[in-house]
Amino acid sequence: MGEVMMVRNKQVILKNYVNGYMKPSDMVVTSDSTICLELPKNNDGLILSKNLYLSCDPYMRNRMNEVVVGSYMTSFTPGLPISGYGVAKVLDSSHPNFKKGDLIQGFVNWEEYSLITDTQYLVKIEHVDDVPLSYYTGILGMIGLTAYVGFYDICSPKKGDFVFVSAASGAVGQLVGQFAKLFGCYVVGSVGSKEKVNLLKNKFGYDEAFNYKEEQDLNATLKRYFPNGIDIYFENVGGKMLDEVLSHMRIHGRIAVCGMISQYNLDRLEGIYNLHLLIFKRIRMQGFLTLDHYHLYSKFLDMILPLIQEGKIVYIEDMVEGLENAPTALAGLYTGKNVGKQVVVITHE
Amino acid sequence: MGEVMMVRNKQVILKNYVNGYMKPSDMVVTSDSTICLELPKNNDGLILSKNLYLSCDPYMRNRMNEVVVGSYMTSFTPGLPISGYGVAKVLDSSHPNFKKGDLIQGFVNWEEYSLITDTQYLVKIEHVDDVPLSYYTGILGMIGLTAYVGFYDICSPKKGDFVFVSAASGAVGQLVGQFAKLFGCYVVGSVGSKEKVNLLKNKFGYDEAFNYKEEQDLNATLKRYFPNGIDIYFENVGGKMLDEVLSHMRIHGRIAVCGMISQYNLDRLEGIYNLHLLIFKRIRMQGFLTLDHYHLYSKFLDMILPLIQEGKIVYIEDMVEGLENAPTALAGLYTGKNVGKQVVVITHE
Repeated sequence: MGEVMMVRNKQVILKNYVNGYMKPSDMVVTSDSTICLELPKNNDGLILSKNLYLSCDPYMRNRMNEVVVGSYMTSFTPGLPISGYGVAKVLDSSHPNFKKGDLIQGFVNWEEYSLITDTQYLVKIEHVDDVPLSYYTGILGMIGLTAYVGFYDICSPKKGDFVFVSAASGAVGQLVGQFAKLFGCYVVGSVGSKEKVNLLKNKFGYDEAFNYKEEQDLNATLKRYFPNGIDIYFENVGGKMLDEVLSHMRIHGRIAVCGMISQYNLDRLEGIYNLHLLIFKRIRMQGFLTLDHYHLYSKFLDMILPLIQEGKIVYIEDMVEGLENAPTALAGLYTGKNVGKQVVVITHE
Repeated sequence: MGEVMMVRNKQVILKNYVNGYMKPSDMVVTSDSTICLELPKNNDGLILSKNLYLSCDPYMRNRMNEVVVGSYMTSFTPGLPISGYGVAKVLDSSHPNFKKGDLIQGFVNWEEYSLITDTQYLVKIEHVDDVPLSYYTGILGMIGLTAYVGFYDICSPKKGDFVFVSAASGAVGQLVGQFAKLFGCYVVGSVGSKEKVNLLKNKFGYDEAFNYKEEQDLNATLKRYFPNGIDIYFENVGGKMLDEVLSHMRIHGRIAVCGMISQYNLDRLEGIYNLHLLIFKRIRMQGFLTLDHYHLYSKFLDMILPLIQEGKIVYIEDMVEGLENAPTALAGLYTGKNVGKQVVVITHE
């Protein structure tokens, strides 16, 4: 009887710790492993999940280093599947808060099926029919809450503020720009292609957008788009962009430091030379992590769901089908291959 | 009759804009100029002052650059006296708020006598007999308010916090350390000599202190003094110290950016490489200027005066006598020659 429950379990395995730019070949997709689709007896608090959608997020690169400096997170383990935020279906449960058939979001391994023992950050999805289930990897999940907390709380926005967003068509950036417009700000975004510039202007309602790869002189670029300076910088990239933005900030400006994707694959980070401007310009620069703000999730959901349903907020996903394509999708984040939020579909159901 | 009122007016003149490290010879002290010790007729709002005490402050180096990047302040003008915070006596006044004999604090030229036309930041001193008048260049003036606002407001201290102060025996640093101790924090300071280490420990009540010039490995140093990390960094120096502190900050740490004295004489500033830690550690880093907080001055005075009178706060000044020694005193700030708050005495009365 037990035998029929064993199935092959396709997984994305990290081969070794990574140095420099992550490549798809740093991971391997294998079906060597099997999993028993039945919970072990006499063990409470476990969940057996079928994983549906995986979120590709820039921070994941840091977990491929042997040492994750200064982070609450630990390294991935070479030889084992990597993990990340995702959406899954409960096949079986001995946990009181979850039952068979439930849809859940939270941290799951990059594999078809998981035996979940750490259920701390799992959230049951109350799925609304007219919204794609994959949205819970992004706009309706941790990513959406990141944009919400980052903009409304960390940025302390005021109506009429001049707002600059980098990586502005990405998972978080596209939302921050739309929040800022709804709030009555003037918003400019930087992205890495013409196609993304068009997205910002025609889909997300950014006032202006530019392709940083085509700009020879960032100082001149920022002067062009912000002749009066920047009140709020929503930082997703770090490096040279941050350094240049500092010299275009207005007095009492705010910088929400959400990510620094340009730095995650570098062995030696780029130096920032303009921090003395924090003083004269009285700038507040603040890093944040969404895990400190989970208590705001239901409040956020109450706000965002109607906006999506009324078409006041749009959301673009870049869907890749199949776990075998997951390594390429993840590595593509760091060269800007994705257009919108990068999602890997393991199965639609 | 007019003739007898003309007197020689000794002045500290900036020769030229400065590149690299400021030297005393970048200024010249001359008595070539004369001033009429009588106010011009039919002009309201003017003050004729006899200048008594001058404050030497690190930010003044920036005003010797041809362009003061990102600052609300303008450059000094070569050929004219420099200016700074000071204490003066009103010899004559056509301004309704000030009268002959008043003592004032605010921005004055580095000269014996001044005709003050911009009275915006002048404050009348209500002098208390048992406190030195020179204190209004420091602990009882803008400097004291800087330490007060910086620590109590920008640092958001909590009892038991681990606090690190750089340039810790300087005008601001010596006060921040004492405020932090009174608040119930654990406080360590860095300074540039053994004499100053002793001051911190024996005069200002710092828990620990070290001479950064004797430390070969700042990482090991900070690990030694903060085995559990730093909650609050009161930043006065910038550069390598800031970069190293970032990797020793605790989660939800705060950095009050008050000054970066190590950078002011450099043509090319030092890069900061650890800013990505702001994210994982959720650090708030905030620059501030006291001029935004002048409205708190009388509240501050009500708090600090009794503390001084009861001996609960001490204050060390490094007094230099005579305008002719002012250029050396100012330049000495950047090599750490001063012990405590650097003051130039033009005359004691």
